[in-house]
Amino acid sequence: MRRAPLTLPGVEPRADLLNRYREIRAAVTAACDPLSAEDMGVQSMPDASPTKWHLAHTSWFYETFVLSDLAFGCYEPFDPAFSYLFNSYYEAVGERHPRPKRGFLTRPSVGDVFRYRAHVDAAMAERLPRISETDFARLRMVIETGLNHEQQHLELIFTDIKHAFAQNPLKPAYRELTRPEECPVGPLCWVEFDAGVRRIGHAGDDFAYDNEGPPHRVFLEPFAIGSRLVTCGEFLAFMADGGYTRPELWLSDGWAAKKFNDWEAPLYWQREGDRWSVFTLGGIRPIVESEPVAHVSFYEADAYSRWEKARLPTEAEWEVACSDAPVNGNLLEQDRLHPAPLTGDGMRIAQAFGDVWEWTQSPYSPYPGYAPAAGALGEYNGKFMCNQMVLRGGSCVTPRSHIRATYRNFFPPEARWQFSGLRLARSL
Amino acid sequence: MRRAPLTLPGVEPRADLLNRYREIRAAVTAACDPLSAEDMGVQSMPDASPTKWHLAHTSWFYETFVLSDLAFGCYEPFDPAFSYLFNSYYEAVGERHPRPKRGFLTRPSVGDVFRYRAHVDAAMAERLPRISETDFARLRMVIETGLNHEQQHLELIFTDIKHAFAQNPLKPAYRELTRPEECPVGPLCWVEFDAGVRRIGHAGDDFAYDNEGPPHRVFLEPFAIGSRLVTCGEFLAFMADGGYTRPELWLSDGWAAKKFNDWEAPLYWQREGDRWSVFTLGGIRPIVESEPVAHVSFYEADAYSRWEKARLPTEAEWEVACSDAPVNGNLLEQDRLHPAPLTGDGMRIAQAFGDVWEWTQSPYSPYPGYAPAAGALGEYNGKFMCNQMVLRGGSCVTPRSHIRATYRNFFPPEARWQFSGLRLARSL
Amino acid sequence: MRRAPLTLPGVEPRADLLNRYREIRAAVTAACDPLSAEDMGVQSMPDASPTKWHLAHTSWFYETFVLSDLAFGCYEPFDPAFSYLFNSYYEAVGERHPRPKRGFLTRPSVGDVFRYRAHVDAAMAERLPRISETDFARLRMVIETGLNHEQQHLELIFTDIKHAFAQNPLKPAYRELTRPEECPVGPLCWVEFDAGVRRIGHAGDDFAYDNEGPPHRVFLEPFAIGSRLVTCGEFLAFMADGGYTRPELWLSDGWAAKKFNDWEAPLYWQREGDRWSVFTLGGIRPIVESEPVAHVSFYEADAYSRWEKARLPTEAEWEVACSDAPVNGNLLEQDRLHPAPLTGDGMRIAQAFGDVWEWTQSPYSPYPGYAPAAGALGEYNGKFMCNQMVLRGGSCVTPRSHIRATYRNFFPPEARWQFSGLRLARSL
Amino acid sequence: MRRAPLTLPGVEPRADLLNRYREIRAAVTAACDPLSAEDMGVQSMPDASPTKWHLAHTSWFYETFVLSDLAFGCYEPFDPAFSYLFNSYYEAVGERHPRPKRGFLTRPSVGDVFRYRAHVDAAMAERLPRISETDFARLRMVIETGLNHEQQHLELIFTDIKHAFAQNPLKPAYRELTRPEECPVGPLCWVEFDAGVRRIGHAGDDFAYDNEGPPHRVFLEPFAIGSRLVTCGEFLAFMADGGYTRPELWLSDGWAAKKFNDWEAPLYWQREGDRWSVFTLGGIRPIVESEPVAHVSFYEADAYSRWEKARLPTEAEWEVACSDAPVNGNLLEQDRLHPAPLTGDGMRIAQAFGDVWEWTQSPYSPYPGYAPAAGALGEYNGKFMCNQMVLRGGSCVTPRSHIRATYRNFFPPEARWQFSGLRLARSL
Repeated sequence: MRRAPLTLPGVEPRADLLNRYREIRAAVTAACDPLSAEDMGVQSMPDASPTKWHLAHTSWFYETFVLSDLAFGCYEPFDPAFSYLFNSYYEAVGERHPRPKRGFLTRPSVGDVFRYRAHVDAAMAERLPRISETDFARLRMVIETGLNHEQQHLELIFTDIKHAFAQNPLKPAYRELTRPEECPVGPLCWVEFDAGVRRIGHAGDDFAYDNEGPPHRVFLEPFAIGSRLVTCGEFLAFMADGGYTRPELWLSDGWAAKKFNDWEAPLYWQREGDRWSVFTLGGIRPIVESEPVAHVSFYEADAYSRWEKARLPTEAEWEVACSDAPVNGNLLEQDRLHPAPLTGDGMRIAQAFGDVWEWTQSPYSPYPGYAPAAGALGEYNGKFMCNQMVLRGGSCVTPRSHIRATYRNFFPPEARWQFSGLRLARSL
Repeated sequence: MRRAPLTLPGVEPRADLLNRYREIRAAVTAACDPLSAEDMGVQSMPDASPTKWHLAHTSWFYETFVLSDLAFGCYEPFDPAFSYLFNSYYEAVGERHPRPKRGFLTRPSVGDVFRYRAHVDAAMAERLPRISETDFARLRMVIETGLNHEQQHLELIFTDIKHAFAQNPLKPAYRELTRPEECPVGPLCWVEFDAGVRRIGHAGDDFAYDNEGPPHRVFLEPFAIGSRLVTCGEFLAFMADGGYTRPELWLSDGWAAKKFNDWEAPLYWQREGDRWSVFTLGGIRPIVESEPVAHVSFYEADAYSRWEKARLPTEAEWEVACSDAPVNGNLLEQDRLHPAPLTGDGMRIAQAFGDVWEWTQSPYSPYPGYAPAAGALGEYNGKFMCNQMVLRGGSCVTPRSHIRATYRNFFPPEARWQFSGLRLARSL
Repeated sequence: MRRAPLTLPGVEPRADLLNRYREIRAAVTAACDPLSAEDMGVQSMPDASPTKWHLAHTSWFYETFVLSDLAFGCYEPFDPAFSYLFNSYYEAVGERHPRPKRGFLTRPSVGDVFRYRAHVDAAMAERLPRISETDFARLRMVIETGLNHEQQHLELIFTDIKHAFAQNPLKPAYRELTRPEECPVGPLCWVEFDAGVRRIGHAGDDFAYDNEGPPHRVFLEPFAIGSRLVTCGEFLAFMADGGYTRPELWLSDGWAAKKFNDWEAPLYWQREGDRWSVFTLGGIRPIVESEPVAHVSFYEADAYSRWEKARLPTEAEWEVACSDAPVNGNLLEQDRLHPAPLTGDGMRIAQAFGDVWEWTQSPYSPYPGYAPAAGALGEYNGKFMCNQMVLRGGSCVTPRSHIRATYRNFFPPEARWQFSGLRLARSL
Repeated sequence: MRRAPLTLPGVEPRADLLNRYREIRAAVTAACDPLSAEDMGVQSMPDASPTKWHLAHTSWFYETFVLSDLAFGCYEPFDPAFSYLFNSYYEAVGERHPRPKRGFLTRPSVGDVFRYRAHVDAAMAERLPRISETDFARLRMVIETGLNHEQQHLELIFTDIKHAFAQNPLKPAYRELTRPEECPVGPLCWVEFDAGVRRIGHAGDDFAYDNEGPPHRVFLEPFAIGSRLVTCGEFLAFMADGGYTRPELWLSDGWAAKKFNDWEAPLYWQREGDRWSVFTLGGIRPIVESEPVAHVSFYEADAYSRWEKARLPTEAEWEVACSDAPVNGNLLEQDRLHPAPLTGDGMRIAQAFGDVWEWTQSPYSPYPGYAPAAGALGEYNGKFMCNQMVLRGGSCVTPRSHIRATYRNFFPPEARWQFSGLRLARSL
């Protein structure tokens, strides 16, 4: 985590933090509204977690890393067993419940977990305003991390329940969604950038994860990047041209994954006669060709770009190209819960934020001079820096206050259950 | 299935059947009382099913094999999708939801499933009394099969939720159970039987599964059988003598299973310091040495018997030895939900019924002249006649009206999640 | 193992045994003639072993169980490391090289292994005639077991190298084989047997494995058994009638195995256009319809028999039906190395011995009163009495002196690399 | 592949190429001298190949990509089946024998494979001098690739047979090796480099793989790099300090690999009492502490560097640091076949070439502007650019003419059977 300013003009910092804490906690609760207790308990694959687990784990984070600090007085944990049940992967904090068995935890009940959240919320509301400025200075970034951590789990609540519902032959909808009109999308424009030394990575005093820094220089050879995301219609053309049957378009590991998993289309697509439909958080409906394609693996994104005689951007190229784009777009606050067709064409680079996480061709590695945070929170990012690819830009279920141009998300190249899509790039 | 009498003295057969139908359905509902909707959705391993699935599948059975018969008029299925969701393994009835994914079905909800049950119950109550005697004669054994089928799933509700709760580090209890006093059990007596031709298998007109017939003759060489079940105390002695570390006591496949699964004690046992505790439907408590040992695999039962310089009985020996024993004992109606120490000593053969299913050394094979029932119900038993071992006598969660001396239960030799124990035998 | 007579009329027992020892050892050596050192090192699946391993393991048997006995004086093992390398599964004898890694042992070389054999042969030839009568009485059955053990491995040399060659796209032949003429086989006759108590199992003083005894009584209900083996032509009819696509014909585990392994025909069959060819020890050639079908699993044999509205015989039925048949037929001494069409029709029961091992419907279980041999040799048979099915009658690569009516071979139900076929039976 | 000059001063280019062809072919043959036919057939894991397969595959390369060109006239392939048997992974060239089954190919024999090589050698020797200059210009880089390809397989012959021998409990030696004296190695020096734009990647006309280009600019922040390789003695200190038991030192995937594979030391190390020995191509002998540590995975190299509060260099840092080092050292021509202790201290950067491949922290990715070669040879490098890490510098079994500063080797992070070690780096 990065240092944060000790004071902000005009707002009492502890009050500001508590307000944002409450907003995020409320957004998580609201996300559960359409879900039954049964829905909230299911784990449909080891990579996904039950909603209930997300609810509890995010509270566990505050209990473990914030409230247990002496600055908060003698905080009494809600239930001592929870520290084992709801640890995710922090080796430094001790043993934990095996990840693939999270769906077996029918107890504590959803009700208990909401009581757990209320217990933590009450402690935060009561005690945070009263800790000393010194303690606050020391703990602030941990709390900020907790907030951002919960926003990540808010996003996972959506992607994980979508995966769970997709396993159900009834294909239940999370909620009714408005279905976009099919409207043609203009041709892709190539936005060009000159060679040169650029500065990337997070600088400044506002919050960022440790993996976004330190800011540093990179040399970029000249490149061009696509003005918008690749659409379902374009991806259908790739499929029609044998995209899933031509090994020469694929990386070797990608082709093996395609064969092992019988991939013939993006995740959640299903053929109905001679048409393709897609399962969304609003249920099944026909593909809308102008929508950005989503739920593709890195391997599919890479194969598609090779078919286009292009490539994926590096994360540095993406950051340079998108660093001036305003942080808005089809993010969680839009409440669409699905990627949306591009409208308008005023911006050089469109759809930089929201819609889908964009696969880059950059493996997830430490920046020069990277040093993980001290203590258990140092496990947050650094220990995953192998066998994963960087994604940029956030998706339709990413909160706006969570995303920024330097943000580095990462998933294994075969992962498809996130809202993951792509933008093309080329060397010049 | 076997033929059944068209009339019973003094009771109207359709009314009698409906009464028993209601009793069994009510027992299943009652078994769910201590469970939350979350509990009822979980599937902790592919071999086990969620309570909710058991509730729905048993209703599906009546819908598919009974109510869909024209004798019942134009029965409207509750939901057409359920025929896919809740088929277990009947190939003849069509495609079905994959077994390991039963736990992903958060929809239909438990409430929906209870409404499904009520829909089926209403149809049965309204229509069964009105079908013709001819139709009843034709359908009676199918309905009887439905009743017995539901009793089997009632037993599985207990064993499956026990397995699910055992995965939870909180080790929740299904219900409070009274804990037995530790009271010494007398030494094992050997009850001897002469050589000769014996008749085994089910004869007569009351219900039995097709695999219990036809009745036939077997020749038994002289043998002796233990008067009672093997106890936890005896099994502890086996463990103390290196039972789990001496390959010469084990079958080759058994030793491989022991090593692969790291077995060091029966399922649900856990060491606490220098004592052993056991997880029961009432939670964790210390071992009671006089209780019959339960939750052992065939391999462990076999190894134990070899350590005792004895063997397991064949199923024919068991049936001959126990055919005169009264069908009572620690069965589901006792509501103990756990094997109980032997009390009294009046009977030659004690504990024949109830407490634990008794592993025999007989692989599950067809009897001479065996013919499966016609139609889809022919898949009920016959197609599993390979790689399984026969167990006899019922357990503490078997309904009394479900068990009889000819009853052949069967599980793979490595299965441990049933209440399975053993009785010794010897050749003379 | 069973007791053997201390004296045989007219022949010096030690000399007789040594003569048979030499014959068997020579037959094993001769079987290697067509093989290169490279051929002899390959292990094409964990169930199969390299020829070289068979050569060494059979010598290890004599070293370990015979020559190490003090009766033989101070025998010096050829190489102390071999006791680890060439132990198969005897837990009592100590640790051993992992079975799936037998193919990695390029050292010792084939030449070394033949020197090892010569070393053991020399010791046997020199020392066996000189041991005392008392010692011989004690050790005779162990040596007889060694001889029979080597005959089993002789059979495995053929089946294992056949499997290895079949993995090679070049489909090399072990040796040139004469190809049989296609000649029609007469219809199957049903030979009937009355109900009654029968005696089965090995009695008398000549050698038999411990699992063939003790002799005991069984009651057989009336049955009929096929006069001959099922042919390739009949099996083709089963295939043409959808035998591999109709789950109702299969056991549940069988259907799962069929799907998992993509079985569409017996092992070693391959479709060429609209014809089927078969890989034999003589290479690939078209199917001969009158030949007995071979290389089917128990599951396929069982499905075929269900399609015929028949069943497989039990092992007791087989033994009763075949106990009077002369022990001749297409056995190893015929040197055909493949099942052969039936010729002549004089015998009631034909093809009882040789051609193919006949799957029975009997799981491999101990006979009443069975007791394994003492010591490590007690592991020879007893510890495999689970999850295997009994086969009877020997095959075209079984030495004639090795087979008899009471002989119980056993393999897992999915095994196909042995020469395994079937004969039908029916209950009357 | 890169363009090559059409003429070289003073040497006839075709003659020069043929001379080098002969040298490399002879080196491969010589590497087989200590091996028996049995040794040459074994495949001890899917990642490794039999020596025989390497011998044939390298000849297949010339047949497929060179001799089949019309420039060479009507070349007759040695055996048409070999094009299936000995294709490695070129999808564009057609189907191929499954990689894990390479060890099953006892035919063709080693003798046949040497005849295959002679057939190809004769065709090359006879026809290469006679092709036109135009054809030579067109084909030269393909032939150069064939030479370099064979050098890679020469290296693999050593690493693969080492792995095979290591599986053998007899631990046979490939050949006798001289054992180094234990002599202390001086402390590590840190060689520092300023920040700035640097040029990396292969430029010029001599041969390089396509993945080494195009040359391009990178910006390097200031760093320091270790003057020498990490030694066994240093690695022992890491182990003694709990290196293999402290998850905080490991990447998450690395810790999972460590646990799954039970890693407790580098591959080929084995504890003997309180000492460690190492299996080498000369057999087992005690560790020599001053030798560079070898046969560690990327995960172990990474964990070690974290324990040292350092990190691995990026591949750009390595190339910048080592580009001036002379290409000599403990390479294949030294014939030591094992990493050797550092001697002398005159050089700033020592051991850059030879001894062990050095893991970098750079995932294997395309350089900016990278374009794979056209045709099937485009599969040589590009399709593996995912889930692998770059290694630099060559090892003790790399031919000197094969290595250079821009050379990018790559293996999955868990691979250990190559001679792979590490050099430390730090950000300044």
